[in-house]
Amino acid sequence: MSIDFQVGATSGTARLGRLITPHGEVQTPVFMPVGTLASIKGVPQDMVEKLGAEIILANTYHLYLRPGIEQVRKLGGLHRFMSWNRAILTDSGGFQVFSLTELRKLTEEGVSFRSHLDGSTHFLTPETATAAQIGLGSDILMAFDECTEYPAESARTRSSMELTLRWAERSKKYFEEHKHEVPWSSNHMVTATFGCPSERSRQNAGPTEAELCSAGRMRAPAPTSDGMTQALFGIVQGGMDPALRRESAERTIEIGFSGYAIGGLSVGEPRRVTREIVEATVEHLPFNKPRYLMGVGKPEEIVEYANLGIDMMDCVLPTRAARHGLLFTSEGKISIKQARYAGDETPLDPNCGCRVCARYSRAYLRHLYASKEVLAQVLNTIHNLSFYLDTLRAVRHSIELGNRSQFLSGK
Amino acid sequence: MSIDFQVGATSGTARLGRLITPHGEVQTPVFMPVGTLASIKGVPQDMVEKLGAEIILANTYHLYLRPGIEQVRKLGGLHRFMSWNRAILTDSGGFQVFSLTELRKLTEEGVSFRSHLDGSTHFLTPETATAAQIGLGSDILMAFDECTEYPAESARTRSSMELTLRWAERSKKYFEEHKHEVPWSSNHMVTATFGCPSERSRQNAGPTEAELCSAGRMRAPAPTSDGMTQALFGIVQGGMDPALRRESAERTIEIGFSGYAIGGLSVGEPRRVTREIVEATVEHLPFNKPRYLMGVGKPEEIVEYANLGIDMMDCVLPTRAARHGLLFTSEGKISIKQARYAGDETPLDPNCGCRVCARYSRAYLRHLYASKEVLAQVLNTIHNLSFYLDTLRAVRHSIELGNRSQFLSGK
Repeated sequence: MSIDFQVGATSGTARLGRLITPHGEVQTPVFMPVGTLASIKGVPQDMVEKLGAEIILANTYHLYLRPGIEQVRKLGGLHRFMSWNRAILTDSGGFQVFSLTELRKLTEEGVSFRSHLDGSTHFLTPETATAAQIGLGSDILMAFDECTEYPAESARTRSSMELTLRWAERSKKYFEEHKHEVPWSSNHMVTATFGCPSERSRQNAGPTEAELCSAGRMRAPAPTSDGMTQALFGIVQGGMDPALRRESAERTIEIGFSGYAIGGLSVGEPRRVTREIVEATVEHLPFNKPRYLMGVGKPEEIVEYANLGIDMMDCVLPTRAARHGLLFTSEGKISIKQARYAGDETPLDPNCGCRVCARYSRAYLRHLYASKEVLAQVLNTIHNLSFYLDTLRAVRHSIELGNRSQFLSGK
Repeated sequence: MSIDFQVGATSGTARLGRLITPHGEVQTPVFMPVGTLASIKGVPQDMVEKLGAEIILANTYHLYLRPGIEQVRKLGGLHRFMSWNRAILTDSGGFQVFSLTELRKLTEEGVSFRSHLDGSTHFLTPETATAAQIGLGSDILMAFDECTEYPAESARTRSSMELTLRWAERSKKYFEEHKHEVPWSSNHMVTATFGCPSERSRQNAGPTEAELCSAGRMRAPAPTSDGMTQALFGIVQGGMDPALRRESAERTIEIGFSGYAIGGLSVGEPRRVTREIVEATVEHLPFNKPRYLMGVGKPEEIVEYANLGIDMMDCVLPTRAARHGLLFTSEGKISIKQARYAGDETPLDPNCGCRVCARYSRAYLRHLYASKEVLAQVLNTIHNLSFYLDTLRAVRHSIELGNRSQFLSGK
C-alpha cells in the first residue's frame, strides 16, 4: 500500500478527508508549507511541527542541484536528512525548469536546461524526475509534466496536454518498476527507530509532548508504516479549456494514479478563470482519490478551492510574503514595514493564537523588519504559516459541521 | 535597592554568585548573549529562554539610532518592547561610537559622531548616554567611558583614564538624579502583570512550563520586584599598565557603583597581556560586587577569566561566528561550510544536548549553510550559544565542587 485516502464528511462539494501516508496522517483539506531546499525558510522543524503542519512540500529541482539527489539518498532520504518525520510531497521539478532556467530545450524525451546556479547542463525526463523523487524518498511524488504557459493557442494547449499524458505514462511505468528503491523501504537499511509518542498522537498532544520530543535525541526518523511505499500523483493539464481539462482528467485517470493534481493554473490567468477551470476539472476527478491544486493561493482563495472539493494545496505566498513583511491577519493584510506600526503595541493579529501574536507587538515586529534583523523573517514566517494552517483548520471544522466555509477578512 | 549580589562559594580566585536583578536572578559566572538591536540575531526569545540565558546584553548605540530611545521608552522599555522578562544589561554606547562611526569629535563634554546608518550627527555625553539607558530600562547600565585604544602611549593612557573617571562621576550623578524615570518604575504606568510561573522557577522547570508560558498571552512583561531600580556599573580603564589599572580601580570604587567592569581589553593586545591585566585589576575590585569583563572571549578564555574571579562576560563571538558557519564544539571548532561534512550524519557535537545537536546532522547543517538558508543562522546561533552557556554551567558546577574549571577541547 502507498497511501490511503478516506472522505469522512462532505458539505456541498467540499470534503473532509484523512490521508494516510508512510509518514503519518494528514487531515484534508490541507495546506502544504513549501520547504524548497529541505527547510521552511527560517523556521526550525520543531516549530513547523508545533504549527500543526502534517505535510510539507519540497522542490525536486532545487534539491537535485543542491545537495544533489544521490547525497540525500545516501543519507536515508529527505525525512531523515532534514529530520522531518511527517509527510513530504515533492514536485517533479518540471515547473522550476520552465520558470527558473534559461536555454531550455524541450523534446519528446524530456527537457535539457542550464542550472540557474552555475549554468551547468542537465536533462530531466519522466524517468529521471521520478528517479529523483524516489531517491528523495518523499511520500507523494508528482508525475513529470509540462506546465502549459498562459495564454496559449488551442493547438499548443492540446499538444502540450498530449505530451503531459505521454510523460505521465512513462512516469508511472518508471515508478512501478523502481518504487522499491525508496531509501526508507524495507529493502534498505534503516536501523534507527523514531520513538516519540507525540508523533503518533500529535492531534491531541499539547506543546509539552512536542517539546519533550524535540528535546530528545531523535535525529533519525525511520519509516513508521512497514511495507508502505511512495505514492505517485498524476497531473491534469489542458490550459483554460474546460473540454481539454475534461479529456486530460479522464485520460490521466485511465493511466491510474494514487491522486490527481490540477496543474497549469495560477500562471497569470484571471482568478475567475482559475475558479472556472478548477470547477470544470474537479467534477471529472474520482471521489475517493485526493485532489491537489498546485501552487495556490491567497487565504481567501484556498478557502474557495476547498469549498470546490480540493483536498490539497501548496503555495510559496505565506513564506515569501513573510520575507517581504507582508502579513496575513484576520483583519486583512498588513505591511509591517509601515511607520504607522512603529508605536503599535497591539499584537499582529488579535484573533491569532500563534506564538508570534501571543508574545510580540507590531511595534517590535516593525522594528525587526526595519532593522533587517533575521528574526523578522523567522517570526513573520511563523505567523503567516500559522494563519494559513488555522484557516484550513477552520475550513475542516466547517465541513464537519456541514457548513460552507467563508473567509472572513476585514479588508 | 537596585541589584543584590552574593558570593555563595569560591574555589581559588573563582567565585560562584547570585545576582538578583529587577528582572530575575542570574547565576554567576555568567555569559551574556549579545542582542544588539533587541534581538539575539535569528533566535526567538522563547528559545533564548530555553537555552537558559538569564541575562542578555543590548547595545545602546544601535537602539539609540533604531528604533530610538524615546520609542522604546514609550513602549515601556526594552523588556516589554522585545518581550524579554529576564535581566538586560546595556552598554553605554561609547564603544560603538569609537569603533563604528567616522568623523568623531571628542571633547571634555562628550563625543559627537555621525551615524553609521545615515550620516546624521549626534552627540553623546555621560548624561545623554545614561539618560538613554534609563529610557531603555535595562537592569544594569554602564557608565559612559572612553575605551583606550591599543597600543597607546603612557600619557595618552593616563589622560584617557582620567577622562573616563570624570565621565564616571557625571554618569553616576545623572543616574542618581534620574533613575526614578525608568519606564518600569512604580512612578510609571505598568498595568500588565507577567504571571508565568516558569519565570520564577525556571531553574527547575522543564520545557513544559516554558512552553506553556510562551504559548500564553504574555506580551507585556512588567517589573516583578516592586521598588527595585536600575543599577549602574563603573568601568575600569588604564590600558595595559597594571599601575594605572590599580589607580583606575581604586578611584572608580571611590565614586561608588553597584558593580565594576574591566573595559579596554580584547582590543588587539596579546591574550597573555589580557590575562595579566585582568589579574592585576581583579585584585583591586571589592569582593562583594559583581565584576564584569567586557567583550570577551573564546570559550577557553571565558573559563580562564572565570577562574580569575570574573563574574560576568559578553561577546559577539558565538553569535557572529555562527553566522559565518564557525561552530564551537567539545571536540574543537568546526567550519560547517567544509565539503567534508556534506555526508556526515553525526551530530555537530556528540557531547551537546542542545536542540540542534539532538535533531540535525552535520550534513544537514552543511547543506543549509552552503545553500544560504536562513535556518543555518538560526540553528548555528542556537548551538553556539548553547555551547557557551553550557561551558559556564560547567564552570559554576566546578566552583561549587571546589574544583578549578578546565576547558577541555579536542583542538
